[in-house]
Parts: sequence; structure tokens; C-alpha cells
Amino acid sequence: MEFSSKLLENAVYEMSQLPGIGKRTALRLVLHLLKRPETQTAQLSKALTALREDICFCSNCHNISDQELCEICSNPKRDEATVCVVEDIRDVMAIENTGQFVGHYHVLGGKISPIEGVGPQDLSIAQLVAKVKTGKVNELIFALSATMEGDTTNFYIYKQLQGIEVKTSTIARGIPVGDELEYADEVTLGRSIVNRIPFEGSLRIS
Amino acid sequence: MEFSSKLLENAVYEMSQLPGIGKRTALRLVLHLLKRPETQTAQLSKALTALREDICFCSNCHNISDQELCEICSNPKRDEATVCVVEDIRDVMAIENTGQFVGHYHVLGGKISPIEGVGPQDLSIAQLVAKVKTGKVNELIFALSATMEGDTTNFYIYKQLQGIEVKTSTIARGIPVGDELEYADEVTLGRSIVNRIPFEGSLRIS
Repeated sequence: MEFSSKLLENAVYEMSQLPGIGKRTALRLVLHLLKRPETQTAQLSKALTALREDICFCSNCHNISDQELCEICSNPKRDEATVCVVEDIRDVMAIENTGQFVGHYHVLGGKISPIEGVGPQDLSIAQLVAKVKTGKVNELIFALSATMEGDTTNFYIYKQLQGIEVKTSTIARGIPVGDELEYADEVTLGRSIVNRIPFEGSLRIS
Repeated sequence: MEFSSKLLENAVYEMSQLPGIGKRTALRLVLHLLKRPETQTAQLSKALTALREDICFCSNCHNISDQELCEICSNPKRDEATVCVVEDIRDVMAIENTGQFVGHYHVLGGKISPIEGVGPQDLSIAQLVAKVKTGKVNELIFALSATMEGDTTNFYIYKQLQGIEVKTSTIARGIPVGDELEYADEVTLGRSIVNRIPFEGSLRIS
């Protein structure tokens, strides 16, 4: 792509550095901004810069927060003895939306992935182990993605916790609610039979 | 979506104002920036702000440019008597890439679209008519999209030029090179038969 303007070329280049945004999409976005009032671009730039410069991470759960302690960790009604281990803030938001969990979270900041160069030292695993060692945590719920990286991370943390007395559990894998059996993949269907639960248990959540 | 951070919420909101970017994609992009070095966000913000504040439009063709006259308009080798009328800079780039056109452009900045609230006064049509009235333009090539809005805009300009001596033409509509006839739509195929060209003419471009 040849541009008639260095300013335009530069803006398109920076925009195309975002994931999933190629040169063509970047050009479309940048041209859209050019058609809009100058304030829109100014607000976007300001919001991004402010986020990057002033963002904090909760000192307890490592979630994104505006304060030293996030709203969940500073809420006295939440159960700090039950800690749900998740990858990032999107998972916290997803679980919060269910309204089914009243414990604390621990945000790892990713999962172990040798291919992407992410090792245990890049995640907040040491802090999690330290938190469990204080003895205040009764149960650790692993809620990472059901992928190889997620399972590896689960297992790594599990190994690190050997010798420390804490209950560990993982969220249930099975047939999504509302799905037909015939469309489920074999691994999921197989797991859902092996890990079947008492029928009374399935009535708990309506 | 409920956010644990106002800064994050604000950044996601501003990002989701871009066309084709919903709240989820915006969150993904913003979280990506958070994982990257601070310089990347700073460069993106700077590039966008610089573009919006310092951008010029060529005084002759209204294309985006860093100078008063764009590179095409200030190139003495280009034929200023042949003017290609296009919607925006993307069309200029596309036609330039073909290497088949050596004239000047006139960038309208959009096309007439009552649904989107774009009228003739929002486009650089008056400037185009004034340019033609100077008598320096021999031929005007309409190269707008083959949509109803494009055709409306073509026709509006054509009407404005009544009584002024200038040759007008429009780019050929037909079967794309390399396409099979059976997959072409009826309108395109019909037009390509009605507007057939002498066989010798088809040999000009290799």
C-alpha cells in the first residue's frame, strides 16, 4: 500500500499493530476518524493513554482496578476463603455475570504457553501460592480455558501446592445447557458421562 | 458489561465507537494494549492525534496530503486534462496500483446518500464543477461504486455539468477478469453484453 501522506501511513501502521486488524481495516478505521469531529479522536487517544499510564492492578487478586484493592476484594460480603483462579478480567466479568459465585478471584494474567513464550514466572502464580500458604484459603477453583495450555497451567499450580492443605476443584466440563447431545463432540460427551453428578445436584441451579 | 475500572470502561467505550468494533472486540484490543509496552499505546495515540490535527487536503483534488498540493497534482508528467472522479483516498490508491491511469483525480469525500444524511453540499462537487468551468478539463471519468448511491452521485454531477463542454465517461462494468460466466449475476452479465467492445479494444491491456 502506498500512501499520499506520511501522517496517514503512520496512523494506519500503528492501528494495524492491534490484533486482528490488518492494513485495510486500519485504513478504514483511520478514515472514519478523519470524517468525525476532532474531539472523537482526541477522546480515544486520551482514554487509551490514561488507561495505559494510570491503570492499577488489585494487590490481592491482580485484577484490573482503579484502586489498591478492587471492588470484589474490598467487599466484606464476599467469601475470601474460596478463590477462583482465572486467566484475565474477561473471565472475571463472565463469572460475575452468572451471579453464582460469591468468593474472591485470582487473576493469573494468562496461561502457560511455551509457543507464545509465556512461562510460569510471567503469571501471578507465585503470589497465588503465597496466598494459599497463609492458610486463609479453603478452596481453590480452577476456571481456566479447557485447552492444553489451560490444563497445563492447572497442573503446574496443582504441583506447586503439593504439601499445602487446600481443597482444589475445577469447573465442570460437560454438555452446554440447551445443547443437543448429537452435536456434542466425543471428548465432551465422554467426560460428561464419566463425571456424572447425582440428579439432585443438578436441580440446585434453576 | 460491568467493568471493575472506570479507566478501562472509558477506553473500551471509545474504542467501540469505531465502525465494526463491538464492545467485546474493543475489550480484546484494549487488553492487548495493556499487555504491551507503554510506548505502543503512546505511539498509537500520538499517530492518531497528529493525523487528525495536522492533516491537509490537496487544494486541487481534495485528496489527503501532507502538503498544499498532493504528489499527483504537483507531478508535471501527469495529464491534468483527464480527471477521474472518486469517492475517497482508497479508490485513488486502488487505481494508482493498476498503473493504468496517468491523469488527475478529484476526491468527492463520499457519495450522495439521503439515508446517511450526505447531500451534494457535503461533497466537493461545487469545486469539481468550478474546475471543469475553467476549461482545462477535457474528460471526466466517473469511477464511483456501482451502487445506487454511486449512480445517483454520477447523475447529479452529470446534470450540474449540462451546458459545459466536457467529455464524460464511466469505468466499464462487466465480468471481472478471471471469473467464470456462470457465477456472474444477471445484471452484470446483461450489461457486459449490451456494452460489448470491439475485440481489438480488449487486447490493449495485457
